[in-house]
Amino acid sequence: MNAEVLSIGDELLIGQVINTNQAYIAEKLNSVGIPVTRMITVGDQPGEMLAAFQFAWQHFDLVAVTGGLGPTHDDLTRSVVCEFFRTDLVRDEAALENIKKLFKARGLPMTRVNEDQAMVPKGCAVMQNAHGTAPGYFFEQQGKIMIIMPGVPYEMTAMMEDFVLPHLSKIANRQVIRHRTLKTTGIAESMLSELIGDVSQLFLPNQGITLAYLPSPLGVRLRISVRTHSAEHAGHMIEEVEEKIRAKAKKYIYAVDQEDLEDVVGRILTERGLNIAVAESCTGGHIADRLTNVSGSSAYFERGFVVYSNASKSAELGVSESLIKEHGAVSREVAEAMAEAARTVAKTDIGLSTTGIAGPAGGTPAKPVGLVWVGYSDKKQTIALRFHYPTERRRFKDRTAQAALEVLRRKLLTPE
Amino acid sequence: MNAEVLSIGDELLIGQVINTNQAYIAEKLNSVGIPVTRMITVGDQPGEMLAAFQFAWQHFDLVAVTGGLGPTHDDLTRSVVCEFFRTDLVRDEAALENIKKLFKARGLPMTRVNEDQAMVPKGCAVMQNAHGTAPGYFFEQQGKIMIIMPGVPYEMTAMMEDFVLPHLSKIANRQVIRHRTLKTTGIAESMLSELIGDVSQLFLPNQGITLAYLPSPLGVRLRISVRTHSAEHAGHMIEEVEEKIRAKAKKYIYAVDQEDLEDVVGRILTERGLNIAVAESCTGGHIADRLTNVSGSSAYFERGFVVYSNASKSAELGVSESLIKEHGAVSREVAEAMAEAARTVAKTDIGLSTTGIAGPAGGTPAKPVGLVWVGYSDKKQTIALRFHYPTERRRFKDRTAQAALEVLRRKLLTPE
Repeated sequence: MNAEVLSIGDELLIGQVINTNQAYIAEKLNSVGIPVTRMITVGDQPGEMLAAFQFAWQHFDLVAVTGGLGPTHDDLTRSVVCEFFRTDLVRDEAALENIKKLFKARGLPMTRVNEDQAMVPKGCAVMQNAHGTAPGYFFEQQGKIMIIMPGVPYEMTAMMEDFVLPHLSKIANRQVIRHRTLKTTGIAESMLSELIGDVSQLFLPNQGITLAYLPSPLGVRLRISVRTHSAEHAGHMIEEVEEKIRAKAKKYIYAVDQEDLEDVVGRILTERGLNIAVAESCTGGHIADRLTNVSGSSAYFERGFVVYSNASKSAELGVSESLIKEHGAVSREVAEAMAEAARTVAKTDIGLSTTGIAGPAGGTPAKPVGLVWVGYSDKKQTIALRFHYPTERRRFKDRTAQAALEVLRRKLLTPE
Repeated sequence: MNAEVLSIGDELLIGQVINTNQAYIAEKLNSVGIPVTRMITVGDQPGEMLAAFQFAWQHFDLVAVTGGLGPTHDDLTRSVVCEFFRTDLVRDEAALENIKKLFKARGLPMTRVNEDQAMVPKGCAVMQNAHGTAPGYFFEQQGKIMIIMPGVPYEMTAMMEDFVLPHLSKIANRQVIRHRTLKTTGIAESMLSELIGDVSQLFLPNQGITLAYLPSPLGVRLRISVRTHSAEHAGHMIEEVEEKIRAKAKKYIYAVDQEDLEDVVGRILTERGLNIAVAESCTGGHIADRLTNVSGSSAYFERGFVVYSNASKSAELGVSESLIKEHGAVSREVAEAMAEAARTVAKTDIGLSTTGIAGPAGGTPAKPVGLVWVGYSDKKQTIALRFHYPTERRRFKDRTAQAALEVLRRKLLTPE
């Protein structure tokens, strides 16, 4: 059984919207044993849409379509679906009830265009929309499946979870595909590749195992993929390869699969019963934002100081004006003073700090754009490490936050 | 002239990586008058790749390919390109110099796999990579163009800016496509659609103008698109439609095109010579992070208090323990006290605050998950507004930060 993901929408073709639906749908179809062979995006033109439907239906066992089901004039998917399956619209009472309920809950008057969304193509199973007014359609014909869902991501994902995936798990074939991703940071792709060496030493080629290198600004991810007859066997195969990779690159691997660095440090802090405060200059609150993305972070994240101005560094953290004057705000000394003060002012076990030049303005030959100091302080030591990320502002903040969280992780794992 | 964007990579088909390249390339090709008709993604299998190359070359005038040019074993695009164009590899001295230079700048030893990346298909113009080791290939044959670039986004974007776009601007045909997006927040898609009414009242259909509604968690965007013979005419057409839309929905439109809410409030604060401090509980630093994404924000962003614990609300902002005890940390009273204290402690013109229940834990019947108060304080007034976003944690933070920045924008535009 193979699948295509088909996205519809001019907003995608002009590059206004980044398509997150395709990745989500692909991941979920994979998880129930249905590999995605192709993804395609076409515009809101009925002719293009119909041609894409026809090609997909001919070449794939399953087609997952999103987009063009909204209430406005540029939403044309429903009429193309009717044309493709040679069917007509009928009113779906459950969809109408759902629309009425949604409007009632929001305390808004229902509009005529919304009511019209309860008209659905005859011959499909109707999937109700938990978060919006457009129902989805599930067609099963001639041994093939076509799933049509709204393009709004959180409406689509709820429909996948509630209806599509439970249904597909029952009917998908029994081949098992499993992936595991080892996330590294602080090492370049080519260095990592040299460190790990020839993949044929890690596993015999052509036995259903692949290893992929995926670079990103936050680090290189290593994806192990296996395809075999049972979940148990897949698990063993993945573990064997993972062990061999860890033997060579353990230090750089900070997390597995969906886990982020903030999840990992959050778990360690929770286990140890430690808490933390952060003092951020150049990252402007981004480290605090990441730490508090984790549910349960209030147990270890005490507070954050976004000390953007020099005055705030002195007022909030007691970093002396003379220290700033002598060494500059972007210096080892100020990073250390900030980390230590974050810890002592907030009365936490650990303090973490950043001070750097995000750019594009503010650089000098001695202190160029991209220079940054990360400070770390606990009850036994206070240190600062220098990094250099000469890139654009948002990427600089991302990379600096990642470096700071990695400094924290390594210190937590090797306390002195 | 029409184009297809072709992405290569198993990581895309299993949903591990969200494809941001397609949107970027589409937007840039549009900007030089080349509409993208289709986007497609295939895996790292040479057979699939070759078939995709053949289909694209047959149906489109221009094909923009990304991915599979890296130094590791799973990068197969180069050999498929050679097969497709029936050509061989030759060493490109400029590419070799570039690779050597990159490694020298990083202070890293050069590896054999990197050196091999200087071998390129014969018959193309070689595009040097400003940020990485893989060069790109620009083929122009039989009146058609194929552009092959690395999949790493910042390497690809630099290659587009430095080589592809300047070259294409010269040869693209003279049809002009222009888009303008009006960004709204605080109003549902169907309400906005009712407010704006029948699009045929805004412009005659089939005169090359379209209007699209694009909902997102941060608000509904309205995209006006025009296609005509001259840039001047396109500009007039867009302005005419924009004026008609603004006449009906002005209050909800906070920005145009790429501008974000933080850019807009940053511009107003700069113009007025005002500065701001924020006190965040449930948004955990996300508002400070957004405000400091703007280059030049140090002129008006003084500091941020990420007061996650109740102790920090008292210690940093002087919010009395009895006030928190009486009304709860998530209350109008505490939101107002936080906003006022942010302003007075930091000695700024404006204070902005958030306090809410991000979830998934911590809700009660009286104060459910998703409840949030946004506080605003200036020298003349201190207020708080209530919002309710019962959604998952990260989306809650995003929507709350957007609501808070919109409260700020409206207050800045209508001072009392």
